[in-house]
Amino acid sequence: MKEPRHITSRNHPLVKDLRRLAQEPGAYRKLGLVWLEGDHLCRALLARGGVPLQSVVGASAWLQPGPRELALAAAEVTVIDDALLGEVSSLESPANIGFLIAAPERGRAPLQGVPTVVLDRLQDPGNVGTILRSAGALGVRQVLALKGGAAFWSPKVLRAGMGAHFGLHLVEGLIVSELDAIEVPLIATSSHAADALHERRLPTPCAWVFGHEGQGVAPALMERCQLTLRIPQPGGEESLNVAAATAICLYESARQRLV
Amino acid sequence: MKEPRHITSRNHPLVKDLRRLAQEPGAYRKLGLVWLEGDHLCRALLARGGVPLQSVVGASAWLQPGPRELALAAAEVTVIDDALLGEVSSLESPANIGFLIAAPERGRAPLQGVPTVVLDRLQDPGNVGTILRSAGALGVRQVLALKGGAAFWSPKVLRAGMGAHFGLHLVEGLIVSELDAIEVPLIATSSHAADALHERRLPTPCAWVFGHEGQGVAPALMERCQLTLRIPQPGGEESLNVAAATAICLYESARQRLV
Repeated sequence: MKEPRHITSRNHPLVKDLRRLAQEPGAYRKLGLVWLEGDHLCRALLARGGVPLQSVVGASAWLQPGPRELALAAAEVTVIDDALLGEVSSLESPANIGFLIAAPERGRAPLQGVPTVVLDRLQDPGNVGTILRSAGALGVRQVLALKGGAAFWSPKVLRAGMGAHFGLHLVEGLIVSELDAIEVPLIATSSHAADALHERRLPTPCAWVFGHEGQGVAPALMERCQLTLRIPQPGGEESLNVAAATAICLYESARQRLV
Repeated sequence: MKEPRHITSRNHPLVKDLRRLAQEPGAYRKLGLVWLEGDHLCRALLARGGVPLQSVVGASAWLQPGPRELALAAAEVTVIDDALLGEVSSLESPANIGFLIAAPERGRAPLQGVPTVVLDRLQDPGNVGTILRSAGALGVRQVLALKGGAAFWSPKVLRAGMGAHFGLHLVEGLIVSELDAIEVPLIATSSHAADALHERRLPTPCAWVFGHEGQGVAPALMERCQLTLRIPQPGGEESLNVAAATAICLYESARQRLV
Protein backbone atom coordinates (compact mmCIF):
# COMPACT_ATOMS: atom_id res chain seq x y z
CA MET A 1 0.00 0.00 0.00
CA LYS A 2 1.17 3.50 -0.76
CA GLU A 3 2.40 5.47 2.19
CA PRO A 4 0.45 8.74 2.37
CA ARG A 5 2.09 11.97 3.32
CA HIS A 6 0.48 13.81 6.19
CA ILE A 7 0.01 17.59 6.16
CA THR A 8 -0.84 19.46 9.33
CA SER A 9 0.11 23.05 8.50
CA ARG A 10 -2.16 25.55 6.87
CA ASN A 11 0.93 27.17 5.37
CA HIS A 12 1.87 24.09 3.38
CA PRO A 13 2.03 24.96 -0.35
CA LEU A 14 -0.55 22.29 -1.20
CA VAL A 15 -3.02 23.71 1.31
CA LYS A 16 -2.48 27.19 -0.13
CA ASP A 17 -3.13 25.88 -3.64
CA LEU A 18 -6.28 24.06 -2.56
CA ARG A 19 -7.60 27.13 -0.78
CA ARG A 20 -7.05 29.18 -3.90
CA LEU A 21 -8.67 26.56 -6.13
CA ALA A 22 -11.71 26.42 -3.85
CA GLN A 23 -12.11 30.19 -3.66
CA GLU A 24 -11.12 31.61 -7.07
CA PRO A 25 -13.26 30.36 -9.96
CA GLY A 26 -10.42 30.79 -12.49
CA ALA A 27 -7.48 29.67 -10.32
CA TYR A 28 -7.21 26.33 -12.15
CA ARG A 29 -6.00 28.17 -15.23
CA LYS A 30 -3.10 29.67 -13.32
CA LEU A 31 -2.19 26.59 -11.28
CA GLY A 32 -2.82 24.00 -13.99
CA LEU A 33 -4.78 21.92 -11.49
CA VAL A 34 -8.46 21.25 -10.94
CA TRP A 35 -9.82 20.43 -7.48
CA LEU A 36 -12.61 17.86 -7.51
CA GLU A 37 -14.23 18.06 -4.14
CA GLY A 38 -16.33 15.25 -2.77
CA ASP A 39 -17.04 11.59 -3.26
CA HIS A 40 -19.46 12.02 -6.16
CA LEU A 41 -17.11 13.96 -8.45
CA CYS A 42 -14.17 11.70 -7.59
CA ARG A 43 -16.12 8.56 -8.45
CA ALA A 44 -17.51 10.14 -11.63
CA LEU A 45 -13.94 10.83 -12.77
CA LEU A 46 -12.87 7.23 -12.15
CA ALA A 47 -15.99 5.87 -13.86
CA ARG A 48 -14.94 7.73 -17.02
CA GLY A 49 -11.40 6.38 -16.81
CA GLY A 50 -9.96 9.65 -15.50
CA VAL A 51 -6.68 9.57 -13.60
CA PRO A 52 -6.24 11.72 -10.49
CA LEU A 53 -2.78 13.14 -9.88
CA GLN A 54 -3.36 13.12 -6.19
CA SER A 55 -6.04 12.45 -3.63
CA VAL A 56 -6.47 14.61 -0.55
CA VAL A 57 -8.32 12.94 2.27
CA GLY A 58 -9.21 14.03 5.78
CA ALA A 59 -7.48 12.27 8.66
CA SER A 60 -10.76 10.83 10.00
CA ALA A 61 -11.93 9.67 6.57
CA TRP A 62 -8.56 7.97 6.01
CA LEU A 63 -9.48 5.60 8.83
CA GLN A 64 -12.70 4.52 7.06
CA PRO A 65 -12.61 1.80 4.39
CA GLY A 66 -14.76 3.65 1.78
CA PRO A 67 -12.88 6.95 1.56
CA ARG A 68 -9.55 5.15 2.03
CA GLU A 69 -10.16 2.91 -0.96
CA LEU A 70 -11.22 5.90 -3.07
CA ALA A 71 -8.13 7.86 -1.98
CA LEU A 72 -5.90 4.98 -3.04
CA ALA A 73 -7.13 5.29 -6.63
CA ALA A 74 -4.69 8.19 -6.99
CA ALA A 75 -0.97 7.86 -7.61
CA GLU A 76 -0.26 10.01 -4.56
CA VAL A 77 -2.25 10.26 -1.36
CA THR A 78 -2.15 13.19 1.03
CA VAL A 79 -3.86 12.98 4.41
CA ILE A 80 -4.65 16.35 5.94
CA ASP A 81 -6.16 17.38 9.23
CA ASP A 82 -9.95 17.51 9.12
CA ALA A 83 -10.00 21.20 10.05
CA LEU A 84 -7.71 22.03 7.12
CA LEU A 85 -9.96 20.18 4.71
CA GLY A 86 -12.80 22.36 5.94
CA GLU A 87 -10.74 25.46 5.17
CA VAL A 88 -10.10 24.45 1.55
CA SER A 89 -13.73 23.62 0.87
CA SER A 90 -16.13 25.52 -1.34
CA LEU A 91 -19.07 23.70 0.24
CA GLU A 92 -21.20 24.50 3.27
CA SER A 93 -20.69 20.94 4.45
CA PRO A 94 -17.07 20.23 3.49
CA ALA A 95 -16.38 16.89 1.85
CA ASN A 96 -13.92 14.50 3.42
CA ILE A 97 -12.06 13.71 0.20
CA GLY A 98 -11.09 15.28 -3.10
CA PHE A 99 -8.88 14.66 -6.12
CA LEU A 100 -6.47 16.95 -7.88
CA ILE A 101 -6.40 16.45 -11.64
CA ALA A 102 -4.45 18.18 -14.38
CA ALA A 103 -6.35 21.15 -15.80
CA PRO A 104 -7.29 20.66 -19.45
CA GLU A 105 -4.60 22.01 -21.75
CA ARG A 106 -5.17 25.45 -23.20
CA GLY A 107 -5.66 25.85 -26.92
CA ARG A 108 -7.52 22.56 -27.17
CA ALA A 109 -9.31 22.40 -30.55
CA PRO A 110 -13.06 21.90 -30.91
CA LEU A 111 -14.19 18.61 -32.49
CA GLN A 112 -15.66 18.62 -35.98
CA GLY A 113 -19.03 17.23 -36.94
CA VAL A 114 -20.38 16.27 -33.51
CA PRO A 115 -23.50 17.34 -31.55
CA THR A 116 -22.42 20.54 -29.83
CA VAL A 117 -23.58 23.23 -27.43
CA VAL A 118 -22.08 26.72 -27.68
CA LEU A 119 -22.32 29.05 -24.67
CA ASP A 120 -21.97 32.77 -25.22
CA ARG A 121 -20.87 34.47 -21.98
CA LEU A 122 -23.16 32.63 -19.57
CA GLN A 123 -22.52 34.09 -16.13
CA ASP A 124 -24.23 31.86 -13.63
CA PRO A 125 -22.15 28.82 -12.60
CA GLY A 126 -25.29 26.88 -11.68
CA ASN A 127 -26.68 27.42 -15.18
CA VAL A 128 -23.44 26.38 -16.83
CA GLY A 129 -23.12 23.23 -14.71
CA THR A 130 -26.76 22.30 -15.29
CA ILE A 131 -26.27 22.74 -19.03
CA LEU A 132 -23.22 20.46 -19.02
CA ARG A 133 -25.27 17.88 -17.16
CA SER A 134 -28.14 18.09 -19.67
CA ALA A 135 -25.66 17.95 -22.54
CA GLY A 136 -24.09 14.78 -21.16
CA ALA A 137 -27.45 13.11 -20.65
CA LEU A 138 -29.01 14.10 -23.97
CA GLY A 139 -26.28 13.01 -26.36
CA VAL A 140 -24.16 16.13 -26.86
CA ARG A 141 -20.46 15.38 -27.40
CA GLN A 142 -18.87 18.78 -26.79
CA VAL A 143 -19.63 22.10 -25.12
CA LEU A 144 -17.77 25.21 -26.29
CA ALA A 145 -17.69 28.49 -24.41
CA LEU A 146 -16.84 31.86 -25.85
CA LYS A 147 -14.62 34.18 -23.84
CA GLY A 148 -16.27 35.89 -20.90
CA GLY A 149 -18.40 33.20 -19.30
CA ALA A 150 -18.32 31.29 -16.02
CA ALA A 151 -15.21 29.09 -15.86
CA PHE A 152 -16.06 25.46 -16.68
CA TRP A 153 -13.74 23.89 -14.10
CA SER A 154 -14.58 26.22 -11.20
CA PRO A 155 -15.95 24.57 -8.03
CA LYS A 156 -19.53 25.79 -8.52
CA VAL A 157 -19.74 24.69 -12.15
CA LEU A 158 -18.20 21.32 -11.26
CA ARG A 159 -20.71 20.88 -8.49
CA ALA A 160 -23.73 21.66 -10.66
CA GLY A 161 -22.30 19.50 -13.46
CA MET A 162 -22.35 16.42 -11.20
CA GLY A 163 -19.60 14.71 -13.19
CA ALA A 164 -20.84 15.53 -16.69
CA HIS A 165 -17.51 17.32 -17.30
CA PHE A 166 -15.69 14.01 -17.63
CA GLY A 167 -17.81 12.70 -20.51
CA LEU A 168 -17.73 15.84 -22.66
CA HIS A 169 -15.16 17.53 -24.87
CA LEU A 170 -14.96 20.98 -23.25
CA VAL A 171 -13.25 24.02 -24.74
CA GLU A 172 -13.52 27.52 -23.32
CA GLY A 173 -12.19 30.97 -24.13
CA LEU A 174 -13.04 30.74 -27.84
CA ILE A 175 -13.74 33.67 -30.14
CA VAL A 176 -16.68 33.63 -32.55
CA SER A 177 -14.66 32.98 -35.72
CA GLU A 178 -13.19 29.81 -34.19
CA LEU A 179 -16.65 28.25 -34.36
CA ASP A 180 -16.30 27.85 -38.13
CA ALA A 181 -14.05 24.88 -37.45
CA ILE A 182 -16.81 22.70 -36.02
CA GLU A 183 -18.54 22.38 -39.39
CA VAL A 184 -22.04 21.82 -38.08
CA PRO A 185 -24.95 24.26 -38.47
CA LEU A 186 -25.50 26.68 -35.59
CA ILE A 187 -29.05 27.02 -34.21
CA ALA A 188 -30.21 29.66 -31.76
CA THR A 189 -33.52 30.27 -30.03
CA SER A 190 -35.27 33.60 -30.41
CA SER A 191 -38.70 34.64 -29.21
CA HIS A 192 -39.03 36.57 -32.50
CA ALA A 193 -38.41 33.54 -34.75
CA ALA A 194 -41.18 32.61 -37.16
CA ASP A 195 -40.93 28.85 -36.67
CA ALA A 196 -41.42 27.01 -33.41
CA LEU A 197 -38.91 24.42 -32.27
CA HIS A 198 -41.24 21.44 -32.76
CA GLU A 199 -42.30 22.51 -36.26
CA ARG A 200 -38.92 22.12 -37.93
CA ARG A 201 -36.85 19.13 -38.83
CA LEU A 202 -33.64 19.82 -36.92
CA PRO A 203 -30.27 19.16 -38.57
CA THR A 204 -28.18 16.38 -37.02
CA PRO A 205 -25.54 16.97 -35.83
CA CYS A 206 -26.01 20.63 -34.98
CA ALA A 207 -24.65 23.17 -32.52
CA TRP A 208 -27.18 24.75 -30.20
CA VAL A 209 -26.19 28.29 -29.22
CA PHE A 210 -27.25 29.88 -25.91
CA GLY A 211 -26.42 33.35 -24.69
CA HIS A 212 -25.83 35.55 -21.68
CA GLU A 213 -28.63 35.46 -19.08
CA GLY A 214 -29.51 39.13 -19.54
CA GLN A 215 -28.29 40.01 -23.02
CA GLY A 216 -28.85 36.79 -24.92
CA VAL A 217 -26.68 35.76 -27.87
CA ALA A 218 -24.36 38.48 -29.19
CA PRO A 219 -25.40 39.88 -32.60
CA ALA A 220 -22.14 38.76 -34.27
CA LEU A 221 -22.83 35.19 -33.22
CA MET A 222 -26.54 35.35 -34.01
CA GLU A 223 -25.62 36.30 -37.59
CA ARG A 224 -23.72 33.06 -37.96
CA CYS A 225 -26.70 30.94 -36.95
CA GLN A 226 -28.24 29.11 -39.89
CA LEU A 227 -31.55 28.71 -38.08
CA THR A 228 -33.40 30.52 -35.31
CA LEU A 229 -36.40 28.95 -33.65
CA ARG A 230 -38.73 29.93 -30.87
CA ILE A 231 -39.63 27.64 -28.00
CA PRO A 232 -43.43 27.46 -27.96
CA GLN A 233 -44.69 29.22 -24.85
CA PRO A 234 -48.42 28.69 -24.55
CA GLY A 235 -48.32 30.38 -21.15
CA GLY A 236 -47.57 33.75 -22.67
CA GLU A 237 -44.45 35.79 -23.16
CA GLU A 238 -42.73 34.68 -20.00
CA SER A 239 -39.11 33.89 -20.62
CA LEU A 240 -37.37 30.66 -19.71
CA ASN A 241 -34.22 30.25 -17.67
CA VAL A 242 -31.36 29.53 -20.08
CA ALA A 243 -30.61 26.11 -18.59
CA ALA A 244 -34.30 25.19 -18.92
CA ALA A 245 -34.29 26.38 -22.55
CA THR A 246 -31.18 24.31 -23.22
CA ALA A 247 -32.77 21.19 -21.77
CA ILE A 248 -35.81 21.67 -24.02
CA CYS A 249 -33.78 22.18 -27.21
CA LEU A 250 -31.48 19.24 -26.53
CA TYR A 251 -34.46 17.05 -25.73
CA GLU A 252 -36.17 18.04 -28.97
CA SER A 253 -33.00 17.21 -30.93
CA ALA A 254 -32.82 13.83 -29.18
CA ARG A 255 -36.53 13.16 -29.69
CA GLN A 256 -36.33 13.84 -33.42
CA ARG A 257 -33.36 11.49 -33.75
CA LEU A 258 -35.27 8.77 -31.88
CA VAL A 259 -38.58 8.89 -33.78
CA MET B 1 -49.17 63.25 -5.13
CA LYS B 2 -48.91 61.05 -2.07
CA GLU B 3 -46.60 62.28 0.61
CA PRO B 4 -44.07 59.52 1.42
CA ARG B 5 -42.93 58.83 4.91
CA HIS B 6 -39.19 58.90 5.43
CA ILE B 7 -37.40 56.33 7.59
CA THR B 8 -33.83 56.88 8.71
CA SER B 9 -33.50 54.50 11.66
CA ARG B 10 -32.45 50.90 11.41
CA ASN B 11 -34.53 50.22 14.49
CA HIS B 12 -37.78 51.21 12.81
CA PRO B 13 -40.23 48.27 12.89
CA LEU B 14 -40.56 48.31 9.11
CA VAL B 15 -36.79 48.04 8.66
CA LYS B 16 -36.73 45.15 11.12
CA ASP B 17 -39.48 43.37 9.21
CA LEU B 18 -37.74 43.90 5.88
CA ARG B 19 -34.46 42.60 7.25
CA ARG B 20 -36.18 39.48 8.49
CA LEU B 21 -38.03 38.97 5.21
CA ALA B 22 -34.77 39.29 3.27
CA GLN B 23 -32.86 36.91 5.51
CA GLU B 24 -35.31 34.19 6.61
CA PRO B 25 -36.78 32.17 3.76
CA GLY B 26 -39.98 31.42 5.68
CA ALA B 27 -40.45 34.78 7.44
CA TYR B 28 -43.32 35.76 5.12
CA ARG B 29 -45.48 33.08 6.73
CA LYS B 30 -45.02 34.64 10.16
CA LEU B 31 -45.29 38.26 9.10
CA GLY B 32 -48.02 37.82 6.48
CA LEU B 33 -45.98 39.96 4.09
CA VAL B 34 -43.86 39.20 1.04
CA TRP B 35 -40.93 41.43 0.08
CA LEU B 36 -40.50 41.84 -3.68
CA GLU B 37 -37.07 43.27 -4.17
CA GLY B 38 -36.10 45.05 -7.34
CA ASP B 39 -37.60 46.70 -10.36
CA HIS B 40 -38.23 43.51 -12.32
CA LEU B 41 -40.38 41.76 -9.71
CA CYS B 42 -42.28 44.97 -8.91
CA ARG B 43 -43.14 45.53 -12.56
CA ALA B 44 -44.06 41.87 -13.04
CA LEU B 45 -46.54 42.18 -10.17
CA LEU B 46 -48.15 45.28 -11.68
CA ALA B 47 -48.27 43.69 -15.14
CA ARG B 48 -50.40 40.88 -13.65
CA GLY B 49 -52.71 43.35 -11.93
CA GLY B 50 -51.19 42.79 -8.49
CA VAL B 51 -51.59 45.46 -5.84
CA PRO B 52 -48.66 46.36 -3.59
CA LEU B 53 -49.50 47.33 -0.02
CA GLN B 54 -46.50 49.55 0.15
CA SER B 55 -43.44 50.53 -1.83
CA VAL B 56 -40.06 51.03 -0.21
CA VAL B 57 -37.68 53.16 -2.22
CA GLY B 58 -34.16 54.42 -1.57
CA ALA B 59 -33.72 58.15 -1.00
CA SER B 60 -31.56 58.54 -4.13
CA ALA B 61 -33.93 56.51 -6.30
CA TRP B 62 -36.87 58.61 -5.07
CA LEU B 63 -35.29 61.58 -6.83
CA GLN B 64 -35.30 59.74 -10.20
CA PRO B 65 -38.43 59.71 -12.37
CA GLY B 66 -38.40 55.93 -13.15
CA PRO B 67 -38.23 54.50 -9.63
CA ARG B 68 -40.43 57.35 -8.33
CA GLU B 69 -43.20 56.50 -10.73
CA LEU B 70 -42.93 52.81 -9.87
CA ALA B 71 -43.02 53.60 -6.14
CA LEU B 72 -46.17 55.64 -6.60
CA ALA B 73 -48.01 52.56 -7.88
CA ALA B 74 -48.40 51.54 -4.22
CA ALA B 75 -50.99 52.88 -1.83
CA GLU B 76 -48.26 53.86 0.61
CA VAL B 77 -44.72 54.98 -0.15
CA THR B 78 -41.81 54.78 2.25
CA VAL B 79 -38.50 56.43 1.42
CA ILE B 80 -35.56 55.00 3.33
CA ASP B 81 -31.89 55.88 3.44
CA ASP B 82 -29.87 54.15 0.75
CA ALA B 83 -27.66 52.43 3.32
CA LEU B 84 -30.70 50.94 5.06
CA LEU B 85 -32.01 49.57 1.79
CA GLY B 86 -28.66 47.84 1.39
CA GLU B 87 -29.08 46.25 4.80
CA VAL B 88 -32.46 44.77 4.02
CA SER B 89 -31.37 43.32 0.71
CA SER B 90 -30.90 39.68 -0.15
CA LEU B 91 -28.90 40.63 -3.24
CA GLU B 92 -25.20 41.23 -3.77
CA SER B 93 -26.09 44.46 -5.56
CA PRO B 94 -29.05 45.76 -3.55
CA ALA B 95 -32.02 47.03 -5.55
CA ASN B 96 -33.18 50.59 -5.06
CA ILE B 97 -36.85 49.75 -4.76
CA GLY B 98 -39.16 47.00 -3.55
CA PHE B 99 -42.82 46.31 -2.85
CA LEU B 100 -44.47 44.73 0.13
CA ILE B 101 -47.46 42.60 -0.75
CA ALA B 102 -49.80 40.52 1.36
CA ALA B 103 -48.60 36.93 1.72
CA PRO B 104 -50.96 34.43 0.09
CA GLU B 105 -53.55 33.19 2.55
CA ARG B 106 -52.87 29.83 4.19
CA GLY B 107 -55.19 26.95 3.49
CA ARG B 108 -55.72 28.02 -0.09
CA ALA B 109 -57.28 25.15 -2.05
CA PRO B 110 -55.71 23.65 -5.17
CA LEU B 111 -57.62 24.18 -8.42
CA GLN B 112 -59.37 21.26 -10.08
CA GLY B 113 -58.82 20.06 -13.61
CA VAL B 114 -55.99 22.37 -14.66
CA PRO B 115 -52.43 21.70 -15.91
CA THR B 116 -50.42 21.30 -12.71
CA VAL B 117 -46.93 20.73 -11.37
CA VAL B 118 -46.47 19.02 -8.00
CA LEU B 119 -43.17 19.46 -6.14
CA ASP B 120 -42.23 16.93 -3.49
CA ARG B 121 -39.74 18.48 -1.04
CA LEU B 122 -37.49 20.26 -3.54
CA GLN B 123 -34.73 21.90 -1.54
CA ASP B 124 -32.89 24.23 -3.86
CA PRO B 125 -34.54 27.67 -4.19
CA GLY B 126 -32.96 28.17 -7.62
CA ASN B 127 -34.54 24.94 -8.84
CA VAL B 128 -37.94 25.85 -7.44
CA GLY B 129 -37.87 29.35 -8.95
CA THR B 130 -36.70 28.03 -12.31
CA ILE B 131 -39.52 25.48 -12.29
CA LEU B 132 -42.11 28.17 -11.56
CA ARG B 133 -40.71 30.16 -14.48
CA SER B 134 -40.90 27.17 -16.84
CA ALA B 135 -44.40 26.39 -15.59
CA GLY B 136 -45.56 29.92 -16.32
CA ALA B 137 -44.06 29.89 -19.81
CA LEU B 138 -45.23 26.43 -20.82
CA GLY B 139 -48.91 26.67 -19.96
CA VAL B 140 -49.14 25.29 -16.42
CA ARG B 141 -51.83 26.94 -14.30
CA GLN B 142 -50.84 25.88 -10.80
CA VAL B 143 -47.84 24.62 -8.86
CA LEU B 144 -48.42 22.69 -5.64
CA ALA B 145 -45.73 21.92 -3.10
CA LEU B 146 -45.84 19.23 -0.47
CA LYS B 147 -44.62 20.04 3.03
CA GLY B 148 -40.86 20.24 3.42
CA GLY B 149 -39.65 22.07 0.35
CA ALA B 150 -38.08 25.48 -0.31
CA ALA B 151 -40.56 28.24 0.51
CA PHE B 152 -42.21 29.60 -2.65
CA TRP B 153 -42.21 33.25 -1.57
CA SER B 154 -38.68 33.37 -0.17
CA PRO B 155 -36.30 35.93 -1.74
CA LYS B 156 -34.22 33.35 -3.63
CA VAL B 157 -37.21 31.54 -5.11
CA LEU B 158 -38.80 34.87 -6.07
CA ARG B 159 -35.59 35.95 -7.73
CA ALA B 160 -35.23 32.75 -9.77
CA GLY B 161 -38.95 32.84 -10.63
CA MET B 162 -38.53 36.23 -12.35
CA GLY B 163 -42.18 37.13 -11.80
CA ALA B 164 -43.73 33.77 -12.73
CA HIS B 165 -45.25 33.66 -9.22
CA PHE B 166 -47.86 36.25 -10.15
CA GLY B 167 -49.34 34.27 -13.03
CA LEU B 168 -49.65 30.94 -11.23
CA HIS B 169 -51.96 29.49 -8.60
CA LEU B 170 -49.47 28.50 -5.91
CA VAL B 171 -50.22 26.33 -2.89
CA GLU B 172 -47.59 24.98 -0.51
CA GLY B 173 -47.48 22.85 2.62
CA LEU B 174 -49.82 20.19 1.24
CA ILE B 175 -49.91 16.55 2.28
CA VAL B 176 -50.09 13.75 -0.28
CA SER B 177 -53.78 12.91 0.26
CA GLU B 178 -54.76 16.50 -0.54
CA LEU B 179 -53.67 15.92 -4.12
CA ASP B 180 -56.77 13.81 -4.76
CA ALA B 181 -58.73 17.05 -4.97
CA ILE B 182 -57.10 18.21 -8.20
CA GLU B 183 -58.76 15.45 -10.24
CA VAL B 184 -56.13 15.19 -12.95
CA PRO B 185 -53.82 12.21 -13.51
CA LEU B 186 -50.42 12.38 -11.84
CA ILE B 187 -47.35 11.59 -13.97
CA ALA B 188 -43.81 11.11 -12.68
CA THR B 189 -40.51 10.47 -14.38
CA SER B 190 -38.45 7.43 -13.52
CA SER B 191 -35.29 6.15 -15.13
CA HIS B 192 -36.71 2.63 -14.65
CA ALA B 193 -39.94 3.29 -16.57
CA ALA B 194 -40.58 1.12 -19.61
CA ASP B 195 -41.93 3.88 -21.84
CA ALA B 196 -40.04 6.99 -22.89
CA LEU B 197 -41.64 10.40 -22.58
CA HIS B 198 -41.96 10.97 -26.33
CA GLU B 199 -43.51 7.55 -26.98
CA ARG B 200 -46.71 8.09 -25.04
CA ARG B 201 -49.74 10.22 -25.67
CA LEU B 202 -49.82 12.37 -22.54
CA PRO B 203 -53.13 13.10 -20.80
CA THR B 204 -54.27 16.72 -20.87
CA PRO B 205 -54.57 18.25 -18.35
CA CYS B 206 -52.20 16.34 -16.12
CA ALA B 207 -50.10 16.96 -13.05
CA TRP B 208 -46.35 16.45 -13.45
CA VAL B 209 -44.70 15.31 -10.22
CA PHE B 210 -41.06 16.07 -9.40
CA GLY B 211 -39.18 15.06 -6.29
CA HIS B 212 -36.39 15.93 -3.91
CA GLU B 213 -33.00 16.55 -5.59
CA GLY B 214 -31.34 13.59 -3.88
CA GLN B 215 -34.18 11.24 -2.97
CA GLY B 216 -36.62 11.76 -5.83
CA VAL B 217 -40.37 11.34 -5.41
CA ALA B 218 -41.46 9.75 -2.11
CA PRO B 219 -42.81 6.19 -2.50
CA ALA B 220 -46.26 7.14 -1.15
CA LEU B 221 -46.59 9.78 -3.85
CA MET B 222 -45.11 7.58 -6.57
CA GLU B 223 -47.83 5.02 -5.85
CA ARG B 224 -50.47 7.59 -6.69
CA CYS B 225 -49.01 8.33 -10.11
CA GLN B 226 -51.07 6.86 -12.94
CA LEU B 227 -48.12 6.94 -15.31
CA THR B 228 -44.34 6.88 -15.01
CA LEU B 229 -42.15 7.70 -17.96
CA ARG B 230 -38.44 7.97 -18.55
CA ILE B 231 -36.80 10.91 -20.26
CA PRO B 232 -34.78 9.47 -23.14
CA GLN B 233 -31.08 9.94 -22.38
CA PRO B 234 -29.07 8.92 -25.41
CA GLY B 235 -25.91 10.17 -23.68
CA GLY B 236 -26.02 7.38 -21.14
CA GLU B 237 -27.23 7.07 -17.59
CA GLU B 238 -26.32 10.57 -16.54
CA SER B 239 -29.09 12.15 -14.54
CA LEU B 240 -30.72 15.48 -15.24
CA ASN B 241 -31.09 18.41 -12.88
CA VAL B 242 -34.70 18.43 -11.65
CA ALA B 243 -35.45 21.86 -13.15
CA ALA B 244 -34.07 20.67 -16.49
CA ALA B 245 -36.23 17.53 -16.29
CA THR B 246 -39.26 19.68 -15.50
CA ALA B 247 -38.65 21.92 -18.50
CA ILE B 248 -38.44 18.86 -20.77
CA CYS B 249 -41.65 17.28 -19.48
CA LEU B 250 -43.64 20.51 -19.63
CA TYR B 251 -42.34 21.17 -23.14
CA GLU B 252 -43.38 17.69 -24.26
CA SER B 253 -46.87 18.23 -22.82
CA ALA B 254 -47.10 21.58 -24.64
CA ARG B 255 -45.73 20.11 -27.88
CA GLN B 256 -48.28 17.31 -27.89
CA ARG B 257 -51.10 19.79 -27.33
CA LEU B 258 -49.84 21.92 -30.22
CA VAL B 259 -49.37 19.22 -32.88
